Amino acid sequence: MDRDNPLFQWAYTIGFGDCDPAGIVFYPNYLRWFDATFHALLRARGKRHEAFCDAYGLVGTGLMDVGATFRSPGQDGDDLVISIWADDWRDKAVRFAYRGTVGERLLVEGYELRGLFVRDGDRLKLGSVAPLKAFLEGGSIDGDRAG
Amino acid sequence: MDRDNPLFQWAYTIGFGDCDPAGIVFYPNYLRWFDATFHALLRARGKRHEAFCDAYGLVGTGLMDVGATFRSPGQDGDDLVISIWADDWRDKAVRFAYRGTVGERLLVEGYELRGLFVRDGDRLKLGSVAPLKAFLEGGSIDGDRAG
Amino acid sequence: MDRDNPLFQWAYTIGFGDCDPAGIVFYPNYLRWFDATFHALLRARGKRHEAFCDAYGLVGTGLMDVGATFRSPGQDGDDLVISIWADDWRDKAVRFAYRGTVGERLLVEGYELRGLFVRDGDRLKLGSVAPLKAFLEGGSIDGDRAG
Amino acid sequence: MDRDNPLFQWAYTIGFGDCDPAGIVFYPNYLRWFDATFHALLRARGKRHEAFCDAYGLVGTGLMDVGATFRSPGQDGDDLVISIWADDWRDKAVRFAYRGTVGERLLVEGYELRGLFVRDGDRLKLGSVAPLKAFLEGGSIDGDRAG
Repeated sequence: MDRDNPLFQWAYTIGFGDCDPAGIVFYPNYLRWFDATFHALLRARGKRHEAFCDAYGLVGTGLMDVGATFRSPGQDGDDLVISIWADDWRDKAVRFAYRGTVGERLLVEGYELRGLFVRDGDRLKLGSVAPLKAFLEGGSIDGDRAG
Repeated sequence: MDRDNPLFQWAYTIGFGDCDPAGIVFYPNYLRWFDATFHALLRARGKRHEAFCDAYGLVGTGLMDVGATFRSPGQDGDDLVISIWADDWRDKAVRFAYRGTVGERLLVEGYELRGLFVRDGDRLKLGSVAPLKAFLEGGSIDGDRAG
Repeated sequence: MDRDNPLFQWAYTIGFGDCDPAGIVFYPNYLRWFDATFHALLRARGKRHEAFCDAYGLVGTGLMDVGATFRSPGQDGDDLVISIWADDWRDKAVRFAYRGTVGERLLVEGYELRGLFVRDGDRLKLGSVAPLKAFLEGGSIDGDRAG
Repeated sequence: MDRDNPLFQWAYTIGFGDCDPAGIVFYPNYLRWFDATFHALLRARGKRHEAFCDAYGLVGTGLMDVGATFRSPGQDGDDLVISIWADDWRDKAVRFAYRGTVGERLLVEGYELRGLFVRDGDRLKLGSVAPLKAFLEGGSIDGDRAG
């Protein structure tokens, strides 16, 4: 993971409604924002989730595992930037790493382990993540970046 | 609307994470809970949303209009009960009325105007709400209450 | 309400996680985004909610009434802009009007009726909304725009 | 961790609005429900979060670390039960383990590492988790279980 070169950065200003009675971000929101960053990355590469799945014959993407470590609290008005890296490509899973910062201050670090679901008769199974790797690296298989 | 005879009541204990920095319920949650009550009503009649739509050839249910009036604040630990009534059946829409109470205390009143979407060639259009009326009144058209 | 001159506009790209099994925005999110727009307006005028309340001796702002009408569905990737107007200043309440658009397409219209809560012995009561009006019109009472 | 004897179980029926365009639970909701289970446990022991903090001179509870592993997808209508265990008491942190099941089916496993924040002059610091341990084990320090 090259800390200076994330795949993508997603910006969001934390709001009052994202915070709990302690006045700080209600923590599941950070996971919501990790997911938002992943989907914004797909769109930045040219396809939203549905179009990406259609293009590669996928039923969907799915999560196997997630984690987050909270370094300092976020508040109403904080300009959050979430960076994303793909730091471990496996056969049927990829690990995305996330860092959420407000200026120089680190708020949260975390990860998601994601896979691609394909149809196998009546059931779903995990397929290779190679299409996602190719897509994120910028060479979409069919050359169609619209969608 | 017969206040003593709602179609259904949905119970939920308000949690810490449902509240904002003022320590009271973040208001969009009340609308989330209205929607939850409608879906719990469908299930109580025998079909969750997907099965209901499949049974009646619908693409989905949809919202045209909502509103809520806040009477007193809800907090962590409050045992909320949301009651639902269908108080205005029109040709292609039905108005559901909601009241959320904690014991004798009224927290919120509101409504949703809902319709049923059916396919019309390539497009969607509003269909009659008669199937929903029949379903909620307990005589499901196909007699199948599973799903 | 001068449609061409909203008080403020809040921009947000709708994500996958904001949508429901029908693939369109789960409607309570629109209310969440109305609230986000109001709070972003406060910050744009120089104070986040907590600083605004501290500056004017308020316990908080509160909602009496909200409503929304849905005009067309929002989806993953839609660049939503929510505009806000204060279209009815009363003694102890102000009505904010909202319009959410994606390009030329109108997704949602709605409103919030908001008040300001002040302490009255052991209880809270609604106070005059004059401080909010002065603040939004740009002349903050204490001249301090930081916070 | 004695799998047959959780500290507490929290029940919730998954709704349509908890699901994403894939028709399954949007995963950050599971973390939201872990947090809800912790707060329901506090209330089951006699105090909601605010009363608990007041009783023990705490500024609040806080999260250092969370994780979740997804075993099978949850859907609209699934009767979810989340069980909670305190499986690692440290000096200034406690690890809660969670399992979410629908009948015999395991949906999610996870954990939260939580601490207690106390005031230290102008700053916050982590205090001992002994008060939380005593509280959860049923002997509240002041004998007052109301609140």
